[in-house]
Parts: sequence; C-alpha cells; structure tokens
Amino acid sequence: MIVVMSQKADSKHVDAVLERLKRAGFQIHLSQGVERTIIGAIGDKTRMRDLALEAMPEVESVVPILQPYKLASRAFKEQDTIVKVGDLEIGGGNIQVMAGPCAVESREQLLEAAQLVKAAGATLLRGGAFKPRTSPYSFQGLEEAGLKLLAEAREKTGLKIVTEVMDASTLPMVAHYADVLQIGTRNMQNFFLLREVAKVNKPVLLKRGASATIEEWLMAAEYIMAGGNYNVILCERGIRTFENFTRNTLDLGAVPVVKYLSHLPVIVDPSHALGKWRFVAPMSLAAVAAGADGLLIEVHPNPAEALCDGPQSLTPENFHALMQQLKDVAGVFGKRMGSLEG
Amino acid sequence: MIVVMSQKADSKHVDAVLERLKRAGFQIHLSQGVERTIIGAIGDKTRMRDLALEAMPEVESVVPILQPYKLASRAFKEQDTIVKVGDLEIGGGNIQVMAGPCAVESREQLLEAAQLVKAAGATLLRGGAFKPRTSPYSFQGLEEAGLKLLAEAREKTGLKIVTEVMDASTLPMVAHYADVLQIGTRNMQNFFLLREVAKVNKPVLLKRGASATIEEWLMAAEYIMAGGNYNVILCERGIRTFENFTRNTLDLGAVPVVKYLSHLPVIVDPSHALGKWRFVAPMSLAAVAAGADGLLIEVHPNPAEALCDGPQSLTPENFHALMQQLKDVAGVFGKRMGSLEG
Amino acid sequence: MIVVMSQKADSKHVDAVLERLKRAGFQIHLSQGVERTIIGAIGDKTRMRDLALEAMPEVESVVPILQPYKLASRAFKEQDTIVKVGDLEIGGGNIQVMAGPCAVESREQLLEAAQLVKAAGATLLRGGAFKPRTSPYSFQGLEEAGLKLLAEAREKTGLKIVTEVMDASTLPMVAHYADVLQIGTRNMQNFFLLREVAKVNKPVLLKRGASATIEEWLMAAEYIMAGGNYNVILCERGIRTFENFTRNTLDLGAVPVVKYLSHLPVIVDPSHALGKWRFVAPMSLAAVAAGADGLLIEVHPNPAEALCDGPQSLTPENFHALMQQLKDVAGVFGKRMGSLEG
Amino acid sequence: MIVVMSQKADSKHVDAVLERLKRAGFQIHLSQGVERTIIGAIGDKTRMRDLALEAMPEVESVVPILQPYKLASRAFKEQDTIVKVGDLEIGGGNIQVMAGPCAVESREQLLEAAQLVKAAGATLLRGGAFKPRTSPYSFQGLEEAGLKLLAEAREKTGLKIVTEVMDASTLPMVAHYADVLQIGTRNMQNFFLLREVAKVNKPVLLKRGASATIEEWLMAAEYIMAGGNYNVILCERGIRTFENFTRNTLDLGAVPVVKYLSHLPVIVDPSHALGKWRFVAPMSLAAVAAGADGLLIEVHPNPAEALCDGPQSLTPENFHALMQQLKDVAGVFGKRMGSLEG
Repeated sequence: MIVVMSQKADSKHVDAVLERLKRAGFQIHLSQGVERTIIGAIGDKTRMRDLALEAMPEVESVVPILQPYKLASRAFKEQDTIVKVGDLEIGGGNIQVMAGPCAVESREQLLEAAQLVKAAGATLLRGGAFKPRTSPYSFQGLEEAGLKLLAEAREKTGLKIVTEVMDASTLPMVAHYADVLQIGTRNMQNFFLLREVAKVNKPVLLKRGASATIEEWLMAAEYIMAGGNYNVILCERGIRTFENFTRNTLDLGAVPVVKYLSHLPVIVDPSHALGKWRFVAPMSLAAVAAGADGLLIEVHPNPAEALCDGPQSLTPENFHALMQQLKDVAGVFGKRMGSLEG
Repeated sequence: MIVVMSQKADSKHVDAVLERLKRAGFQIHLSQGVERTIIGAIGDKTRMRDLALEAMPEVESVVPILQPYKLASRAFKEQDTIVKVGDLEIGGGNIQVMAGPCAVESREQLLEAAQLVKAAGATLLRGGAFKPRTSPYSFQGLEEAGLKLLAEAREKTGLKIVTEVMDASTLPMVAHYADVLQIGTRNMQNFFLLREVAKVNKPVLLKRGASATIEEWLMAAEYIMAGGNYNVILCERGIRTFENFTRNTLDLGAVPVVKYLSHLPVIVDPSHALGKWRFVAPMSLAAVAAGADGLLIEVHPNPAEALCDGPQSLTPENFHALMQQLKDVAGVFGKRMGSLEG
Repeated sequence: MIVVMSQKADSKHVDAVLERLKRAGFQIHLSQGVERTIIGAIGDKTRMRDLALEAMPEVESVVPILQPYKLASRAFKEQDTIVKVGDLEIGGGNIQVMAGPCAVESREQLLEAAQLVKAAGATLLRGGAFKPRTSPYSFQGLEEAGLKLLAEAREKTGLKIVTEVMDASTLPMVAHYADVLQIGTRNMQNFFLLREVAKVNKPVLLKRGASATIEEWLMAAEYIMAGGNYNVILCERGIRTFENFTRNTLDLGAVPVVKYLSHLPVIVDPSHALGKWRFVAPMSLAAVAAGADGLLIEVHPNPAEALCDGPQSLTPENFHALMQQLKDVAGVFGKRMGSLEG
Repeated sequence: MIVVMSQKADSKHVDAVLERLKRAGFQIHLSQGVERTIIGAIGDKTRMRDLALEAMPEVESVVPILQPYKLASRAFKEQDTIVKVGDLEIGGGNIQVMAGPCAVESREQLLEAAQLVKAAGATLLRGGAFKPRTSPYSFQGLEEAGLKLLAEAREKTGLKIVTEVMDASTLPMVAHYADVLQIGTRNMQNFFLLREVAKVNKPVLLKRGASATIEEWLMAAEYIMAGGNYNVILCERGIRTFENFTRNTLDLGAVPVVKYLSHLPVIVDPSHALGKWRFVAPMSLAAVAAGADGLLIEVHPNPAEALCDGPQSLTPENFHALMQQLKDVAGVFGKRMGSLEG
C-alpha cells in the first residue's frame, strides 16, 4: 500500500506511521518528494483498513496496490478452474446452460419445464423453492415441497439441480436436494451464510450483488474458498445503475475482467439483468462471445401464467431457437455446448 | 396500476388482459386512445408483478401507481411514530445520538468510550460484537464476549445499547443483551432475518441498503411490521454511487422524503456515509436541519488505534464540540437533545 | 400520461386538473377508485412537464406513458434505417468497423494507422483533431492541421473519415473535412450543437452521454432529426457506474433495447467503455453478437507512445486478429463485414 | 504517481518505464518488493494519462497520488476565496440566496418574482433566457428578450442577475446583461465554453455535472481559472443515481469535501436536486448547516402556471417562511444572510 502524507507533515508524523507499519510487519520504502512524503509499504493488504492509518495525524490518503483476495486470484492459480457437478464440467471450453422457471410452482409446471429445457439442450435445471421477494405479500416459494419436486425432476431427466439457499438454517435441507447451491444477489455479502456454505461439499453458484464491485464479488468468493470450498462458480446478473428501462444493467465487461483477475468460471444470468424476455436471447449470445462459461436462463412453459418473473421468462420456442444459435457462437470460439452424455 | 397495450394490440389481446385482471379481483377502467389502449386497474399492487402481465401478448408496459407498502406508509398512519427504548423516545421532537466505537475491542476501550459519549450527551451506545467484514481475514468481532461488555457498559452508564444482529442463529443471543437490534446495510434484504426480528419484542434499527431505493427500504420495514414488530427506526447511511472520494454518498434528501411517505422515525449515520471523520460533523448538523430524529456516530477514545473504521471515527474532543452545535441547530427547529433523565 | 390525485383530493382539485388538461388539448379518461382518483390523459407527452401538473394542489404524481420521442421511434418508422456514408452502408446487415488512433498526432502516425486499419478490414478511419480533455493542461488536438491529415489519409486509403466536432464555431471547418460528424459523450445534451449539426448534410455519430438514459439518448437523436438531419448513428460507449475497475460500464443491453425502440443503426465503442485494451476484443465480439451494426475501436501503431488513451488502444496485431474473429461471429448472424469495394 | 509492475516484469520492463518517466522529467523512487516492483514518480500528474504507461509491457496499474488541479486547490490558496458581484460577497460568512423562476416567461411574471424574492431577502435574481431542454419540442426560452427583462428587473429591484449561458456564440450577449454567468450541468465539460467564459470579466457559477466526480468538477473550475478568470462559484445540484423518487440525489457531503479540497465558494441548488418543491426547504436548511455559502432556489409567483419546472418551484409564501428559518440556522454558525445594503 502507499501512504501519502499531507504537505504539513513533519518527521514526527512520518515516524509515527513508519513505526506502526513496521510493528505490523510491513516492509517500508520511503520517498521524500518536494511536495510531500510518500511511504510504500509491502505486506498484507487485508490488514490495511484495520491499521487505521488514515486516522493518524497528517496522513492524507492510503492507496491500496495489491488485490485483497488471494485464493480467488489468477496470481494464486494460473490455470482455469473447472468446477465439476457430477460428470458435468463448468469451465474449460464447455458452455453449460442452466434453465428453468424462476420458482417451482407445481409438479406439473416443473416437470414440463424440466423436459423442455432438457430437450433443447440444457444440462442443469434451475428453479427456486425459497424465493427472496421484495414484498412480504408476494409468493415466497414452496420450500421443501419444491425441493422434492426438483429432485423428482432430476430423477426423471438426469438434469443437475441448481437452487437458491437463503439462510444457514435451511442450508442442510437445500444441500440435501441440490447439486449446486445458489447464493442470491441479496446474500452476496451475507457473511454468515458464506461461511456456512464453505463447509458444505457442493459447488456454489455465487451471484454478484446488485451494487457489488468486482473486487467485492471476488472477496465473497474468497470467504467461501477460505472456508475450504474451492468449487465456486461466479454469476454476473446485472448491476444497479440509473438506467431503468431494463431491470438492471448487465455488466458483460465483468466477464473478461473476472477471467483476467481470477481462475474461477463465470456464467451470466441475462434474465434478471434485463428483466424483459425480449432481450434475453441477444444478451445470451453476447455473453458467450464475451467468454462466459455458461448461462442461467429463465424458461417457463407458459410465462404469462408464472407466479414469479413471468415478464423475463422465455417461452419453450424462444429458448429452443436460442440454443441453436448459442451452439454456432460457441463454435466460433472452439467451445462446445455441455451435454449430459459427458 | 396502468397497463399500456402496444399499438398492434387488438380487442382479443385487450380482452385477455381484462380477464386476468378481473380474475385477480381488480377494478377496471378502460381508455381507448387514438394511439393505444390503456387499462387502469385498481387493486393490490403487491400482486402486480406476480400477475406477469408484461409476459402477455401485445402488453407494452405496466406502470405501478400506488405504493406497495402499507403498514409503513403515512397513508396508513398519519401521525409520527415514536419508538420507545425504555424511557427514551426516538422521534417526536427529540434528537437522540447513538455513539460509540465501530467494534467492541476490549473492556477498557468500551467503558472509556461509553463514559465519554455519555458525558458529551449521547443516550445510546453503539458498538459491534458481530462485524460484517468485506474480507474473511479481517477482525470479525468479539461475539458474545463483546455483548457482555456492552451490557456492563449499560450498567455503568445507563446508556441504552444498539448493536448489530447478523444472522437468525445468533439473534436470541444478541436480543438478550441489546436494547435496539441493528440490521446492517448488507442485510436489509435478508428476508429470513427480517422475519425473525419481527418476532422479537425489541426496537429494530433498519439500515438502508447501499443500493436500495427508498421504496425497497420501506418494503423491508414492511416485512418487520407485517411480522408484528412496529418499532422500526430507519437509518440512512449513504448509498453507492460513482463518486468515490467519500465512502458512500449520503442521501440526506431521503430524510424529508421518508418523513413524507412514512410515519416511522429516521436517523442518519454520517460516519459510514462519508467514511472520513473530517466530514462527520458538518453532515451531522445538516442531518438534523433536514429533519432527522437522531444520529449514529462512530466515536473512539483513540481512532488511530481502532481495530475497525478508525478513519471515520471522531475523537472525544471533536464529538464533544459537535454535540454543542447539534443542540443549537435542534433549538432552531424547536427540538431538544434526548436525555437519559427523560 | 396518468395523473394520480392524492387521497385528500376532492372534486374541486380534480376539476382544476381536468380543466388544464382539456385546455392543453388532451383527451381525458377519469377513473374514480376507492383509494384515489386517477386521470388518464391522451395527448402530447412532450408537453407534459411544461404543464406543471405536479405543482397543482393534491396532485400526487404524474406518470408518463408514451415515449417522448417520435421521429427516432420504431413506431414512426418500422424498417431499420440504413445511413449511407458515400457508398458505405451503416446498418442493414453490414458490420462497419471504424478504427484508428484516439488523437491525430502526426502525419506519420496517422498514415501508418490508416494503412494498417484498412489492411485489417476497417472501412472508416477515426481520429480526433479536437480533443475534449478533462484537464486544461492535456494535449488538446492538432485542430485544422489534424483535419487536413485526416483528409490526406482518406485520399491515400479510401477510408471514410469520422471525427469529433466539439463546438458550433468549428462545425463548418470539421464538416468540410469529415464524412461523419461525431458528437462526443460530453456533448450529447449540448442542444446548441445538436441543432447546428442538424443543419449539415452529413451523417452524425451520436455518442451516448455517460449518465444518459436510453430515453434521453433517443431524445438527443430527436433534436437532430427534428432539425432535418435523419442520418443519425447511435454509439453506445459505456455509462458511469460505481464499478471502477473498468473506465465505464459498457451497457451492451442497450443495443437490443435501442433496436427495439428505434429504427436507427447503433454501433459500440468498447475502447472508451472498458478503458483497457485487454478487454476490447471480447467486448467487440459480444457487441456484434448482441446485434450492433458496427464498432468504433482505438488502434495505434504504437500504443505506448500515444499522446492520448494509449492504455485502451489495440496494437496492429491485436486488431488484425480481432477482425478475423468478428467476421466469424458476424457470419453466425448472416451478416457480413463492411467493405470499401461496396 | 505510483506505477505497479506485474509479477512477471523483469528488469528490462522496469527499465523501460524508468526511462520514460525520466524523459518526462519525473523524479523516481524504486521499491523492489517480494511480490512485485513498485515505482513512485514525483512530478506533474496532469501529464500522467498522456504518458500511456499502462500500455507498456508488464505494467499492471498506475495509481495517481496528487490532485490533478492546482489553481482550484486549497494547497494553492489556503484562504477562502470571496467572489464579489458588485458589492455582494459570495463566501466569507455570508449566505447569499439566488432565487427566481426557472425560465423568464413574461415581463409581468419576472417583475413579480423579482419583487417577491427581494422582499423575502434574496440578493440575486435567477431566471433562464436560454433553456437547455431534454425535448426539442419544449419551450426553449425568450432569449435576448428574456435577458432584457432580467436587466429591467435588476434596475427596479437592485437584485444582481444570474442566468445561464449555453454556447460561446451567445456568450457576448448574455455577458452584456448578466452579473453572474451560469454554466449549466450539461455544459460542465463543454471545454470550448469553459475556455470562453474564462476570458470574460464576470463571476461564473459552475454547476456540477449530473455524473461528474468532485475531482472532475474542480478540473472544470481549473479550466476557467487557467484561462484567467478566478471568480468561480461552485454549485452542487444533485447527481444521478439509481434512486428515482427524487429527480437527482443531492450530494450534500460534497459541500464540506469541496471546502476541504478547494478555496472556492460553494452553493447548493436543492430545487433541481430534489425536483419536488416539498423537499426544497429542508434541504436548503441542511445545505447551510453543511457549510454552503448560499442557495439557488426556484420560486415562482404561481408554480402551477410555470412554463418550466413548476413542480419544483416554491410559492412566495413557502419561500418567505424558508428565509426566516435560514436566518436562524445561519446564526448558529455565526453567519449572516447577505443583504443588498452591503
């Protein structure tokens, strides 16, 4: 880190900073310029804010230099991580499509959805049994009954199951049924929950928080990895900006950025990002062109009857057409669509 | 809500929408303009998104008209709510200052902080025993040992205790010691936790999420109120914007807006919003001038030694000086500083 | 538009609103609900804010329904607009790549750049002669000398020239040399300048403002079209958000959205959006997959020696490789790379 | 500035950077850490981006340390600047209120507005003769006829005139009539215009751009000052964020921040920031408590009849009441309301 002293700092102020840095085990490089003194400190960035240097007299600013995450960084592991879900591989040249309804609503709806997304080429089935809803008066999910239906759909189709876990107290139940544990956007910095999923031996799909920087997102991954679970799949799902024609602003630039900073696989959820079905197909294609390892897409047998997020769900026909185009775009990049036949 | 049909909609499309609205119990008003048909539907906005009207053919957009929260709204309760913490009143012409360190670090630090903020006129002691930290490698709080120190400080000073609860699993423990339960900014939409604190008979301090709209913030309050706990204190603590000289952007305009939309008391946390102690005093004074019912301020006996958020903590001297000015500003508006003597 | 009256509104208040709307030529639809009265008004949205209805007693809110732009809207013209630059067509199944240095620096640099981007397949040469710089102490462009070099490069290569016009006073000079007039992001709402370029018989490349909504961007296009110049090319170049690892956040979702709302062609500038050369290629490919009609890319013979924006410029080798991949992605969508041979 | 080399950098890469920095006149401090090499370079930050160091091989990032503005900085001039408008002083313990309608609409409207704001204690009259409007179909201002009415109002009341200049071509005309030249939020980075107003011997009111950082705002002031006009008044008017209940988000924290970074006076425009008259009074009071030197407030004899921005204009009665409270708040801080009697 770099500590910039104010123009009024004298040697007493500088010495106080040097002493604290040395005490904390940092290596020091001192630069005395004409306008001000600048101190370079080589050591553990994660301890930087705790040092409270900015509260010391005549310290003007503290500038971080190194990334605060380690296990999630490309510097720590140069090769791309491939997360295995049974035989399926997320990352490494496969495009895996996770598709299905926003919420599990009924046996009929879910099984129909499962069959149709499988027929179109999806390899994982998505569907919420616990739903985080902005309003306490909205449908909150079928809970365990929903999880059981997901398990039944898996049995019938072979699709792997990805579903959201909302709280540590329901984690054992969700982990019992799910193949991939989804951490929702509102829980990206629910550190209690991150520490708990770290202890479970299942891959985690970590959605980016709606106002999380890429660095904070990777720090959330770091929580899970530091707790012992290295099977983290990142999921870009749109950030909150001033633009409100779309539900969120899909930050597709985050895909190559994350690939550069980290070795973890990254997928994209265009349904929540855009919020309108009409724009889901072009942004799915763009996501693969940008380098994403997969997609999370809302598909409903009958969107207009969906209990949740109907406006952003694809019809079976639209989803089928999209899957064909995805294959062609993947081909341009020497990638292949994932397959349950391995 | 208003449903706007596309220019291509014919009577078949319109009828389908009308039928769905009627089935859901909405009252209908039809406007057939030259350019397009517009349908007004009077009923329960909370069910709006679930209706998935935007997924129906030739529906161009759906525009909400009424607020989705009820119990939290000024329309539901015209008079200002006063939340009682023992004898202390939050709201109703009192300016209550909640002050103390970011984190409980040690017995000595906490008791010293408690005594000094009390001497300066604070009525509640803040201090985290469970700390949500961006990095898994940062100090995470003293947990129950910290809660016990807070209780000891209360005993010694008479100050009420406000402290954060991070998870449903530790809620009973925190509720045992705290006078006010703080829901942190990252948990504003942790709906599991909101439902749990709703069942506890203690006031809740609900921090605004860093990217939450005012409407979403009031919806989070609605979760707590719908669960039976009406003692909600709102806390504006800065939102995330493109400006990065300050830690967040304090949205002080939210204070009169919330007062207009809701009956709940609202306080302001300038320490987290600005992130630099230098700007805490002017923004505290501005908050009271804007109509806030109180403040949440980080004060540390020795900010440069703080284990957390030292750069934004006031020294005892600066806090004391601020309290004098706050009294004068409160006086201009016919308000008084809260007092433990009732 | 929809006018929502407050719960306290009585017939006197409603009548006042009705009278004003009628006077302004609006058609009225009245809905008297249980909770409140809602007035639908069909007419010219562009006059809405001027009516100041929100300043009338007991008017709670005014909600727009129709888009405020007309000439730029898909409703006004259903078929895609193709903007012609000489024989080149922007839109209509061609992917046109506009490439070159940020700033015209010297004869040698520009001619070298022109030759290399032409060899790689670009059809337009970009290069600034007038540069908007955040600092008054930065290089501000070669002005007319730069324009002359652009004209010379055109003569030598056949490439069309796109260059920025910063002010009405220099517009005649820029229009004398340029084939396409670029309106920069900071000038998107420089309404004086928009009205002036509307009078010139040259295509206009209209960059989106860094904090402009899609609606405001289309309104800026409307200014130019209302002034008589229908040859507007929209250019998405990133919006300002809280994320600061990239220079801006590329809003690629705006591409299909604009295609849906408007008939105008839209291109993408990944260089300014990302700000780092490393991410320009993946986002260029993603832009074409999302439906863009072309790209604006910074290429410099030697980025490390560039006087401006070197960090985001592609080297000749990287640009060449990108052009090959673009061709393949365009092919998937049945599009072809633009060509100077027509 | 600090140049951080990548982990793969060897001495050849480092030497190339050192050579370029030395050639550009920077002083060098080299820190060779275990993980990577860090180069401190002391010199002119304004030249930093032009050096394009980030485009050099194995340079990971370049971190600025010093502020890029000079003349506008507190380091350049320690004492507060007082801008004189005739005998009136902006800054230095005076609270100057600039009030009046959004747009000059008619002789009757303007003179009535002038008299009423003067009677309530305002010292400057605001009113637009050239109006930047989002829609080409909205009222665009009375132009020179409006300026003449402003001059007549000045003659009748003694109020100073502040009005917007939108373009260099109309600057001589506006400067002929105005006492203070307003640069609107959309023109904050219209560098042509900034350079032109720098040549005029009149104070400039520089509104912050809706998505401008504080640093960019001060850089815009630097443009004017570098051109020879030191009489710059900064005006915070709200920034664009995701919150859309208010028109913009008033960044009141910018007031103490600007006071800390710069010596220039700063005023606040709560009317445009909030966009609803109801919230203008509390935010005006908060602005003065935060340390603002004055206010820019929209007042209209009859807001419901205003041709522009009626919803955010105060009535004469509300404005009068606000002025009384402002006086009391100013008094708490030992400040006085400005007066035309000097």
